[in-house]
Amino acid sequence: MNEIIMKLIEENRYKDVRNEITEMNIVDIAHLLMELDKKRLLILFRILPKEIAAGVFSYISLELQQYIIESITDREINNIVSELFLDDAVDFLEEMPSNVVKKVLRNTDEETRKLINQFLNYPDYSAGSVMTIEFVDLKKQMTVKEALNHIRATGIDKETINTCYVIDKGRKLEGVLSIRKLILADEDTIIDNIMDVDVIYANTLDDQETIASLFKKYDLTALPVVDNENRLVGIVTIDDIIDIIDQENTEDLHKMAAMEPLEEDYLKTSAFVLAKHRIVWLLILMISATFTGNIIKRYEELLQSMVVLAAFIPMIMDTGGNAGSQSSTLIIRGMALGEIRTSDVLKVFFKELKVSLIAGITLALVNFARLVFFERIDIAISAMVCSSLLLTVILAKMVGSILPIAAKKIRLDPAIMAGPLITTIVDAVALSIYFGIASKFLNI
Amino acid sequence: MNEIIMKLIEENRYKDVRNEITEMNIVDIAHLLMELDKKRLLILFRILPKEIAAGVFSYISLELQQYIIESITDREINNIVSELFLDDAVDFLEEMPSNVVKKVLRNTDEETRKLINQFLNYPDYSAGSVMTIEFVDLKKQMTVKEALNHIRATGIDKETINTCYVIDKGRKLEGVLSIRKLILADEDTIIDNIMDVDVIYANTLDDQETIASLFKKYDLTALPVVDNENRLVGIVTIDDIIDIIDQENTEDLHKMAAMEPLEEDYLKTSAFVLAKHRIVWLLILMISATFTGNIIKRYEELLQSMVVLAAFIPMIMDTGGNAGSQSSTLIIRGMALGEIRTSDVLKVFFKELKVSLIAGITLALVNFARLVFFERIDIAISAMVCSSLLLTVILAKMVGSILPIAAKKIRLDPAIMAGPLITTIVDAVALSIYFGIASKFLNI
Repeated sequence: MNEIIMKLIEENRYKDVRNEITEMNIVDIAHLLMELDKKRLLILFRILPKEIAAGVFSYISLELQQYIIESITDREINNIVSELFLDDAVDFLEEMPSNVVKKVLRNTDEETRKLINQFLNYPDYSAGSVMTIEFVDLKKQMTVKEALNHIRATGIDKETINTCYVIDKGRKLEGVLSIRKLILADEDTIIDNIMDVDVIYANTLDDQETIASLFKKYDLTALPVVDNENRLVGIVTIDDIIDIIDQENTEDLHKMAAMEPLEEDYLKTSAFVLAKHRIVWLLILMISATFTGNIIKRYEELLQSMVVLAAFIPMIMDTGGNAGSQSSTLIIRGMALGEIRTSDVLKVFFKELKVSLIAGITLALVNFARLVFFERIDIAISAMVCSSLLLTVILAKMVGSILPIAAKKIRLDPAIMAGPLITTIVDAVALSIYFGIASKFLNI
Repeated sequence: MNEIIMKLIEENRYKDVRNEITEMNIVDIAHLLMELDKKRLLILFRILPKEIAAGVFSYISLELQQYIIESITDREINNIVSELFLDDAVDFLEEMPSNVVKKVLRNTDEETRKLINQFLNYPDYSAGSVMTIEFVDLKKQMTVKEALNHIRATGIDKETINTCYVIDKGRKLEGVLSIRKLILADEDTIIDNIMDVDVIYANTLDDQETIASLFKKYDLTALPVVDNENRLVGIVTIDDIIDIIDQENTEDLHKMAAMEPLEEDYLKTSAFVLAKHRIVWLLILMISATFTGNIIKRYEELLQSMVVLAAFIPMIMDTGGNAGSQSSTLIIRGMALGEIRTSDVLKVFFKELKVSLIAGITLALVNFARLVFFERIDIAISAMVCSSLLLTVILAKMVGSILPIAAKKIRLDPAIMAGPLITTIVDAVALSIYFGIASKFLNI
């Protein structure tokens, strides 16, 4: 498909291109446009039918959106913005430099301009900032037939008609109704009798994470959003929720690797910004690790008389860090999915204790066999190393599982209690155990 | 709400309970039931209207689903299973012990039984295993009016009517049509003229991850699934996709913390299974870390004459590990979201090189100042430690960013090239650098 169109473009047969392209999915058209050079991109964009152009525009990269807006006429801008869903228009304007925003706002009617400004004022990551206002509203006195006629008259501009919202004169939300119920009902039925009054809804200021969990819990495809006076002001649709879930997961993952979360794609972020997001944690953890170094220093004499002890440091530190990271990852993810609550702390404690005993003893035994039979290390030293290893694994799993829960309890983000921080804490504990045991054991 | 109902239950006023409860969302009813003791749960479940009971059943925990099936009569089982959507029935049966499966299958009609068996045979995590068969199918010769009548006659049992599928006599998929288009169209319009022929679809054997990315790319709410002869056999709906996205993210996260992914919730998994999922990687990484230990052993004489060198081991190892984990996490996540491709390897390489220079030099300078001014360490040793640190950060970021891409290139899962493995590799490199520089630098 793409190849045929590319060929037509090469040959400047734009009329044929237009015919081919209007059959395509708007996402695919957007991807096709992004492969062209800027001149051709612009020509092709301009020949798109008006109703398709806006859809395609919302799937194009920010950089090219800006280029298009800067290149087209005021009237063309008006055409696009009036066809865009409000949430897409706002998403795009949020990322544009002020000259582009001005150019766009200058070319929209007053009502839309007011709405856009209102939306730009909602806090980031709130329901208000992700909702759209293109929903179907019905009155409860309507019959099914009247409702369907109302939808036929207004539905073309709505983001979805699959769920309809019933509001009173003051725009207060009274019920919801799926298009399925509407179609399956007799046409004289009064909406009041078939609408669902147990409505799941959100407030404009609710956090997007809260909203995502409502979608998951109730298997919703759209969620009404009300203001503080309970007036219906917008809806959030599920396609935005999927983006939010990805975004929240990425954020957690970045935090778990000791970084401030990025706001843009990796490849679009400059090396300087990337470095800035990583340095703070690297510094904190580096300084913390020097305290671990001080533990070694305290046992300098012991080490002097038995340098071989140093050779086991990496194995004990790494195993402790890995064992702790495993536990903290499981707990952090479990809490993010709502499977583990802070009240489960005792259950988690005993479970991890058991797991650490099973894992720790296995590791210690394998290591003991390896040290004695393969490396021909003295049995006493081997036993000392392996009992340190066992204790380290147990403590690592305790620290790794309990700290994320404790963080949540005091309203910190559990995601920071992940691998890197746990490893640093466990390292200090592990080396204290190791040298503590060694100095007792070897009587030095 | 719940408190009123709980009180009515306490007072055994089940008729009033029934009235109250039928107003509620089925998810909330399920949560309410799960808070009751088993006797009351069963009483309440049995008084639910038939059409609500099946919905509620699909949101109850597996343990209680099993309890209910084991406790109710054959006729009641038949009622529930015939009302359940096929995908929910299959999800539930997949987790049940064979006696429960037998009891259920004995009580379903032959056609459903056949279908269930067919679904149970699709590979895990394939489109076939997550799809459902309750979709609306239309013929392209129909008028809009005929289509709407067809939907009215059959829609009640469909999982969604929001997207309708147009098939030919041989059940081959010919087009899709949203309910919106259908409602907005004139009633004499022929389906053929308004259906979308550029259909996005999947094959029964496609992996669920592939399907999730189609939903994301095209903002779909449902996706048709065809067999090898292009016949439409089912649809996947977006509520299942959200579960799949969560599941895939959890899986990646577990792998990135060096564990085999769990199949059940953490709290529902036994300590033995948890340990089994962690031990293999802990063993592999422990053995690998002993090689790092061997590097130290090789420099035993150097350490003997200057034990203070050991005190910097944790700081260098940990900083290297953290720097590497940051890079690998960013790259693994970027690839999972489709933002970074294997062909971007050079871009990534130079970006990480720059980042590592900025971060590494900052860390080295801070550390140098600290060592010289606070810890009063000899300038030569401080310089040696800090140049090892800088080199370690650079190498860690190179290894951390390139290995996940290399893994993907050779079709390994990039998620295993995360923190734990990267740390182990970087540790060995870091200590080689450190002792290598130290022995040259200090001329020992």
